[in-house]
Amino acid sequence: MSELKNDRLLRALARQPVDVTPVWIMRQAGRYLPEYRATREKAGDFLTLCTTPELACEVTLQPVDRYPLDAAILFSDILTIPDAMGLGLYFVEGEGPRFECPVRTQRDVAALTIPDPETELRYVIDTVRLVTHALHGRVPLIGFAGSPWTLATYMVEGGSTRDFNRVKGLMFEQPRLLHTLLETLADAVTQYLNAQINAGVQAVMLFDTWGGVLTPRDYESFSLDYMARIVAGLTREAAGRRVPVILFTKNGGQWLEAMAASGCDALGIDWTTDLGQARQRVGQQVALQGNLDPAALYASPARIREEVDTVLASYGEGSGLVFNLGHGISPNVDPEHVAALVDAAHVLSVKYHVE
Amino acid sequence: MSELKNDRLLRALARQPVDVTPVWIMRQAGRYLPEYRATREKAGDFLTLCTTPELACEVTLQPVDRYPLDAAILFSDILTIPDAMGLGLYFVEGEGPRFECPVRTQRDVAALTIPDPETELRYVIDTVRLVTHALHGRVPLIGFAGSPWTLATYMVEGGSTRDFNRVKGLMFEQPRLLHTLLETLADAVTQYLNAQINAGVQAVMLFDTWGGVLTPRDYESFSLDYMARIVAGLTREAAGRRVPVILFTKNGGQWLEAMAASGCDALGIDWTTDLGQARQRVGQQVALQGNLDPAALYASPARIREEVDTVLASYGEGSGLVFNLGHGISPNVDPEHVAALVDAAHVLSVKYHVE
Repeated sequence: MSELKNDRLLRALARQPVDVTPVWIMRQAGRYLPEYRATREKAGDFLTLCTTPELACEVTLQPVDRYPLDAAILFSDILTIPDAMGLGLYFVEGEGPRFECPVRTQRDVAALTIPDPETELRYVIDTVRLVTHALHGRVPLIGFAGSPWTLATYMVEGGSTRDFNRVKGLMFEQPRLLHTLLETLADAVTQYLNAQINAGVQAVMLFDTWGGVLTPRDYESFSLDYMARIVAGLTREAAGRRVPVILFTKNGGQWLEAMAASGCDALGIDWTTDLGQARQRVGQQVALQGNLDPAALYASPARIREEVDTVLASYGEGSGLVFNLGHGISPNVDPEHVAALVDAAHVLSVKYHVE
Repeated sequence: MSELKNDRLLRALARQPVDVTPVWIMRQAGRYLPEYRATREKAGDFLTLCTTPELACEVTLQPVDRYPLDAAILFSDILTIPDAMGLGLYFVEGEGPRFECPVRTQRDVAALTIPDPETELRYVIDTVRLVTHALHGRVPLIGFAGSPWTLATYMVEGGSTRDFNRVKGLMFEQPRLLHTLLETLADAVTQYLNAQINAGVQAVMLFDTWGGVLTPRDYESFSLDYMARIVAGLTREAAGRRVPVILFTKNGGQWLEAMAASGCDALGIDWTTDLGQARQRVGQQVALQGNLDPAALYASPARIREEVDTVLASYGEGSGLVFNLGHGISPNVDPEHVAALVDAAHVLSVKYHVE
């Protein structure tokens, strides 16, 4: 284990003093980077890129080689778990993920087994090992997984959806069956993230992309409860350091208090929530991560600086903020604009970290 | 002007006592009804259905003929205004609306003129007159329009969008130009709704479908301010009665206080917000409308009753609630399930309206 040379991310997540606000970008290893597109072309398709550790390692490192980011995030996909469960993940160009074998019946759910990360998801764990070795302590590596609810939406619907009718149909009519599926997924995610931690990731993030389509009652029962269960089951210390957990529910701004009570270390905040208000509500309990509108990256570098400044000012003085977008970066953004964002987050945040 | 035989909607919107909670359903005149599909087939296409007053009147009346609903809502589309501005609205099957001439430059915005409702949107106003006559005071007729921001998203993007990059590009880089567009739209919507009121609608609703994709700051500046301007410009009394205004921002649950201060009479609430909490926050100022998860209509009638009961219980005792879905009804719902919803809202709400 190499010494960590840049620990801003971990310090901010622990709400300990930092010199400047750390910054990384959701989906930072992605299509907006020409070097990513080159590796993706070499791979042939997205799934090969994900499942080939050397290539996944290569794209994981690309953004931290190009920008002074304060963290790397494992290049992977949230749907590796259902794929390893045998659902047959494939991608239709321009239409997102699909499953050959959706999960819809008692029988489908009963047939699911929890993948062994070290064998059935070995390519992910090997990628973590490769990246950890290659980073050599330059910045921490963040591991991640999808939330059980979010995974369930894809597994039940058979792919992306706009109205979530099938999975909500289960929720209303066969809640016990859906709970069984979510329990299985919570166990699978826990084992998967623990394997990532054992292999070297220094922080983990749970992506609950679709928790925000639920009522408050159903969010707690069908999404948050399972994330809390995962948090409780995670290895929270590795290599002598705490392994922080970031929990992100897109459109979860109304439920920050409940989310903060889940046992996580930090909340991802999307841009529809004011960061200053979020801090007032839960800043004594957890760190915050966010929350620039990803569309701001289409604006000019000068305008991007202003917007970064607004986000930093909204959070205010002191530690506890990890600068990020409020959602994943768009594929058509100019890489120079990302450089402007990273630079602005560092330069403009100095004034908030003076003793 | 006929006497209004069922004034539950207007009483609830004024937070005056009612015998039972009034109910109507967003997009109640729609594809889930076989009689709608028959009229739509007769029309040939969606736009012909919208622009032919006899047919639009026919489908407006269908749900109130079939169910004991407490309101009719004008059958129309929010994009009639940009279409009347000359943008060339058309629909691609399964892909939603498109415009032949999107609005993206200074020149595009400067060229826009405000349509005269009585001539350029005459088919809408004629539909209002036909429906008002046909209803003969059975239930009130609700008129509606899209919010300026929501209309602008379609006009700038040229149709539906997932990431709103073009319209947010304008917002970040040419805010004055976007404000000019929104001012024009606010004037157009004000005149359009006033023409609907003059022709007989007894309440109006502003649909801000896409305000929830903005930051709190941008929501106030680019969406809410223009809705408040519209509310201030509306004819608020007609035929000796107040004409209430319902304001609905999808995913606006974090901003209810600001919305309630807009001068409107009621807020539409989607299902991600707890109705009881919404009432605590703004229930002294405005009535509330909502907020069953539309996906609940895929559940069994017994389960629908339970969910209706949960919504009613969440709001609690007394007037000030208009029961509705939290968004438009899905096209594949069983009409019998809608019957169950309407019945449950009436029957189960009796206990909340005992003196």
